[in-house]
Amino acid sequence: DSALKVFSLNSNPELAKEIAENIGTELGKCTVTSFSDGEIQINIDESIRGCDVYVVQSTCAPVNQHLMELLIMIDALKRASASTINIVMPYYGYARQDRKARAREPITAKLIANLLETAGASRVIMLDLHAPQIQGFFDMPIDHLLGVPILSDYFNTKNFDDVVIVSPDHGGVTRARKMADRLKAPIAIIDKRRPKPNVAEVMNIVGNVEGKTAIMIDDIIDTAGTITLAANALVESGAKNVYACCTHPVLSGPALDRIENSKIEELVVTNTIPLGEDKSIDKITQLSVAPLISEAIVRVHERQSVSILFD
Amino acid sequence: DSALKVFSLNSNPELAKEIAENIGTELGKCTVTSFSDGEIQINIDESIRGCDVYVVQSTCAPVNQHLMELLIMIDALKRASASTINIVMPYYGYARQDRKARAREPITAKLIANLLETAGASRVIMLDLHAPQIQGFFDMPIDHLLGVPILSDYFNTKNFDDVVIVSPDHGGVTRARKMADRLKAPIAIIDKRRPKPNVAEVMNIVGNVEGKTAIMIDDIIDTAGTITLAANALVESGAKNVYACCTHPVLSGPALDRIENSKIEELVVTNTIPLGEDKSIDKITQLSVAPLISEAIVRVHERQSVSILFD
Ligand SMILES: Nc1ncnc2c1ncn2[C@@H]1O[C@H](COP(=O)(O)O)[C@@H](O)[C@H]1O
Ligand SMILES: Nc1ncnc2c1ncn2[C@@H]1O[C@H](COP(=O)(O)O)[C@@H](O)[C@H]1O
Repeated sequence: DSALKVFSLNSNPELAKEIAENIGTELGKCTVTSFSDGEIQINIDESIRGCDVYVVQSTCAPVNQHLMELLIMIDALKRASASTINIVMPYYGYARQDRKARAREPITAKLIANLLETAGASRVIMLDLHAPQIQGFFDMPIDHLLGVPILSDYFNTKNFDDVVIVSPDHGGVTRARKMADRLKAPIAIIDKRRPKPNVAEVMNIVGNVEGKTAIMIDDIIDTAGTITLAANALVESGAKNVYACCTHPVLSGPALDRIENSKIEELVVTNTIPLGEDKSIDKITQLSVAPLISEAIVRVHERQSVSILFD
Repeated sequence: DSALKVFSLNSNPELAKEIAENIGTELGKCTVTSFSDGEIQINIDESIRGCDVYVVQSTCAPVNQHLMELLIMIDALKRASASTINIVMPYYGYARQDRKARAREPITAKLIANLLETAGASRVIMLDLHAPQIQGFFDMPIDHLLGVPILSDYFNTKNFDDVVIVSPDHGGVTRARKMADRLKAPIAIIDKRRPKPNVAEVMNIVGNVEGKTAIMIDDIIDTAGTITLAANALVESGAKNVYACCTHPVLSGPALDRIENSKIEELVVTNTIPLGEDKSIDKITQLSVAPLISEAIVRVHERQSVSILFD
């Protein structure tokens, strides 16, 4: 059996360390820095010949830098005779560019899949893809993990009385249903529509939230516009408390201000994207996906089913 | 015959404009911006169905950003049914990572070639590759233009009396020879060697520079360490004046300070990399490669030989 090695690049060093500890190994030795002109310089400082290598890297901001680090690392591992190159990508950047919504747009999520294959990846382990169809952009095995169990377990410990799980848009209803099953709660849906062109959107709530604790769930929270407006709509419709959760805390631009000043009591996220000091505010609770990912890595390495982790 | 369209991305907008003017066309309409989280957003704002498209982009700093802009643009052009996608890359970033100099290093220059092919490029027009072997990293046609004629023509107008062309290292002798032919001058070579391990390098000069105007030529000047030390060595060996020139002014880190405080009278560069306001100092003269590139584009489009431009 070939040896398992875990390497970290620069997006998620803490998560990678936690994963290596859970697995009972040390992080592989490598140096990932930049030359004076900004070109990435990578040196792998230990032999990985014949090894099954797992590289932990999210393509979160700075996304182009993190992506190139990953592609160059894959190239170096391939040329250093790794047996398999398994990419652990907790957050898949560019996932929202997954179709031509307008004429002459790129489909960058597919481009990234092609680039990873070209560089030499053997497999990708991912969490909560924006659209599960992105799995089909790859011609290699994909292990698609879900954050719902981690988020649900956290809210279960709160023992709320009367809960409703809310999907902030139509696209997220399946995810809300999964969480509702785990919390034995009903669901509601925020139904955004524009009454006339050039008139502000109206948020209708489909389902009953009156007197209930509403928990919104999404895959990504980016600028937090939708989620904070949805919180207002829920309160106006009589929700007692509003919570929100997501797997990927992108939190760009005005996100933190909006959350801080919103009717959301608490935002629960995972560490697929590190928050960093500037993004750690009191209202945000961050849960680790390291136990989930470590177990997935061990199962992949031992040729055991991974789907059991969230079925 | 299919229509010719020139598009500019964000690395060299001035050069691209000049190229389009020389060709007698307008730049293609496209919007290349970023979403709030830093992901690149590209929209091509006019039909390019069936066109021969030329995209001008150097992969200079920020190199990873400029490379991803280019790959995403190629993806968008391919999906918008361009007939051919011709990349005009005046400066090829990562060219110095063109071999495994140490164990377990990547060969990023080859990775980039593969990424461009995967995205859908049909051809690349480049200038002064750090190593001409990089042409062989591609399985598509490459047109490799040279900066030597442009740099030589400039120095020819100066009518110096007694000139010697100096290669700052062994790798650049062929280039120095080409320039010497054009200026009807002899060559000299800076012969760096380390007398003992952990002892500073010594710069010997092979060839006669005494009483002469020395013109050093290189492909890239990055931190300007070598070239400014070489200038000292030339003056110590009796050179009357020292000039330097290169095609690609990377000029990172301490480069400008070093040049300003050096014995170099004038540094002549091209605009394969824009200098920007922060890098435009009195000692630096910038020549345009737009006439050369425009002529190459027209010749490629009309199926005429390009090599005639510098033979
Ligand atoms: N990084 C991004 N930030 C904001 N919007 C994006 C981003 N990437 C893609 N989009 C847009 O978001 C839309 C897809 O989002 P969705 O409807 O949630 O799948 C597409 O129309 C994209 O143009
Ligand atoms: N962007 C860069 N800046 C400085 N050195 C580099 C860069 N990229 C590669 N190198 C190193 O430069 C060496 C190649 O330079 P050369 O000998 O001039 O071809 C290699 O050993 C690389 O490790």
